[in-house]
Amino acid sequence: MVRMDAEAAGLLKKLVLGERLAHLATLRGGAPMASMTLFLAEQDFSAFYVHVSRLAWHTQDMQQDPRVALSISETDDRRPDPFTLMRVTLRGSSSEVTDENGELQRNWLARFPEQAVNFTLADFSFWRIAPRDARFVAGFGRIHNLSARQLRQAAA
Amino acid sequence: MVRMDAEAAGLLKKLVLGERLAHLATLRGGAPMASMTLFLAEQDFSAFYVHVSRLAWHTQDMQQDPRVALSISETDDRRPDPFTLMRVTLRGSSSEVTDENGELQRNWLARFPEQAVNFTLADFSFWRIAPRDARFVAGFGRIHNLSARQLRQAAA
Repeated sequence: MVRMDAEAAGLLKKLVLGERLAHLATLRGGAPMASMTLFLAEQDFSAFYVHVSRLAWHTQDMQQDPRVALSISETDDRRPDPFTLMRVTLRGSSSEVTDENGELQRNWLARFPEQAVNFTLADFSFWRIAPRDARFVAGFGRIHNLSARQLRQAAA
Repeated sequence: MVRMDAEAAGLLKKLVLGERLAHLATLRGGAPMASMTLFLAEQDFSAFYVHVSRLAWHTQDMQQDPRVALSISETDDRRPDPFTLMRVTLRGSSSEVTDENGELQRNWLARFPEQAVNFTLADFSFWRIAPRDARFVAGFGRIHNLSARQLRQAAA
């Protein structure tokens, strides 16, 4: 494990704020499942949100078992070696949340304006993922295992 | 579930052959884990290969429990609504394989020429993922649940 310096923290922040897609791993019948989702990070990286339909498998899975992982990678820019792309995995616990004051919806729509239609559907709701830890690969062999606290420090 | 027609099959083929990144979901201490990996599909989609280090968490996980899921999504082209990006999840079983005649290595290097260095490292090996089923989302609401047989038909 490499110590998280200011440069690495900056790279992690760029990755999390710049990317729009994540792959959400859940437990399905005791086996691993993963599927693409859109995500939004809390400003201090203390939480990550997904806006999902009750009809989606990952939502059904989270209802059964809150444990999840969220895997985010840098967009493939067709560089010769895609193994050097940055990626991070957050492991944590998920729970459905009520968007009391509509703040989540506003932030979500600021990021995904075309997703407005999903807020008119009764089966969509926000789920909050509270990360327990993170594993950040800043490139080949540059692996950072981070606690939730160290993850928040990267957001600062 | 929408019937898999020739158009959908063509889209799935384009997705699997065109993308280079996947997110591999494994079980880690009974909880879901996911991490980015490169992948190579067998020509008839009967198997998917990853070339991984024994030092990597996902490899340790597969050694403990062969069940995996592989989630592949279309590269984010910064379209207004990324929820319309195509994605597929393959669920199946993984096993370490010996590359007897070097065919896998040749195919891997044809796809990832810069990965040659990993074949000089003793801790890297190929793992084969045999898909049991697949869930292909060709766009909002266009979901195809496929058997391994239907997945092979898409490759034809």
